[in-house]
Amino acid sequence: MTQNQPIKALENSINDMVTVKLKDQRIFRGRLTRCDMIMNLTLADAEEIDEEQVKAKYGEVLIRGNNILWIQIPES
Amino acid sequence: MTQNQPIKALENSINDMVTVKLKDQRIFRGRLTRCDMIMNLTLADAEEIDEEQVKAKYGEVLIRGNNILWIQIPES
Amino acid sequence: MTQNQPIKALENSINDMVTVKLKDQRIFRGRLTRCDMIMNLTLADAEEIDEEQVKAKYGEVLIRGNNILWIQIPES
Amino acid sequence: MTQNQPIKALENSINDMVTVKLKDQRIFRGRLTRCDMIMNLTLADAEEIDEEQVKAKYGEVLIRGNNILWIQIPES
Amino acid sequence: MTQNQPIKALENSINDMVTVKLKDQRIFRGRLTRCDMIMNLTLADAEEIDEEQVKAKYGEVLIRGNNILWIQIPES
Amino acid sequence: MTQNQPIKALENSINDMVTVKLKDQRIFRGRLTRCDMIMNLTLADAEEIDEEQVKAKYGEVLIRGNNILWIQIPES
Amino acid sequence: MTQNQPIKALENSINDMVTVKLKDQRIFRGRLTRCDMIMNLTLADAEEIDEEQVKAKYGEVLIRGNNILWIQIPES
Repeated sequence: MTQNQPIKALENSINDMVTVKLKDQRIFRGRLTRCDMIMNLTLADAEEIDEEQVKAKYGEVLIRGNNILWIQIPES
Repeated sequence: MTQNQPIKALENSINDMVTVKLKDQRIFRGRLTRCDMIMNLTLADAEEIDEEQVKAKYGEVLIRGNNILWIQIPES
Repeated sequence: MTQNQPIKALENSINDMVTVKLKDQRIFRGRLTRCDMIMNLTLADAEEIDEEQVKAKYGEVLIRGNNILWIQIPES
Repeated sequence: MTQNQPIKALENSINDMVTVKLKDQRIFRGRLTRCDMIMNLTLADAEEIDEEQVKAKYGEVLIRGNNILWIQIPES
Repeated sequence: MTQNQPIKALENSINDMVTVKLKDQRIFRGRLTRCDMIMNLTLADAEEIDEEQVKAKYGEVLIRGNNILWIQIPES
Repeated sequence: MTQNQPIKALENSINDMVTVKLKDQRIFRGRLTRCDMIMNLTLADAEEIDEEQVKAKYGEVLIRGNNILWIQIPES
Repeated sequence: MTQNQPIKALENSINDMVTVKLKDQRIFRGRLTRCDMIMNLTLADAEEIDEEQVKAKYGEVLIRGNNILWIQIPES
């Protein structure tokens, strides 16, 4: 996987805080602990956010890549 | 499958209690007994939860991976 | 297919009564007579259930796997 | 394709009357004349049924498999 | 492609008038001029029909196969 | 790619004005400048049309093929 | 990848400002920093736009290709 691949930007964010928007409009925020080529990923200390409020805390969450709209990652 | 793959985190949760959110917004809670690479999984002692209430109990349930939004797993 | 594959749990349920929830929220109940790796399956003596009432009886039904949310199977 | 494959049950129904439920909740009834592995199929003397009334007659219809929820087939 | 494949029935309808129902419930009617294995097709003299009225005329239209629900073809 | 392939009709329309209907019911009109086998395409001088009014002008637009319902092309 | 491929037009836009429309009707605007063959891409200085107003600023965002409707790119 070359350096200018979008997925590489996700790999570079391992251990950073990321925000994940899902197709059902829910937002998760947490520390990225794992990811793969199809954007399956795990978050530690995951929070579900609704209208900028923390709605629930989940500890560790595995999110299925095909339901992700976008991921906010730290600026490179 | 290397240790930092998201699916590996699911495999590590076999025999643990997990919470599964489906695309239709239903939530299942149960003990993870089987899983595969595309997140098909079986839960023992499965409960369907709606607005934090147990809505139904199903014994053993096979959930199709492509309909899963996220899975809460024990913290590693 | 190894013993801990989720699909194996479905194969083990051949000839047992199962409950199948579809993406359109309809529920089918019947005796599992055939299944394959992508969860296509046939039910004998199939009943369509709506709000815990039998809505229709279909004899034998072939259900397309990609529309299945979950399948309740006998406890192993 | 072995005898216990679900698609085999469809093949066995060639020339029989079948009922096909589509994802858009429409129902077609007709004589199955052709089918393939992904459930593409053709019906002769096809009728579209809505609330148990014949809504339209189409002669021969080719239905795309990926939009099929289930198919009622003759009991084997 | 053997004679009893559903797609073969579509190929046999080249130059015939067909009616195509799309997932968004729109209906196109026109002369089938091209088709492929995944039901991509072109219609000449295409009309878009809504509630049995011609809503628009498009000349030649290329329809993407994955959005097709069903195609009415001439009886074989 | 043989001459009677539907995608060939799209290739033949390079540099012609085409109208593209998307799954979200939006319509784009512009000059076709590029296309590929899965109907990804670029339009120059692209206009978004809503109820037969030009709603927006975008210059050059890349449209993802999987979201296309149909494409009106010049009559061949 | 030949010069007349639609994806090539996206690659040519690296470091340019682009506008991305998603399936959920949200619009992102930012500087394209990475892209791949299935339209996964990263934007720097990304802004989410709703009814022509900047609704949120995200820094760097990774957008999953399969949820993209279209991308406005600089005229070539």
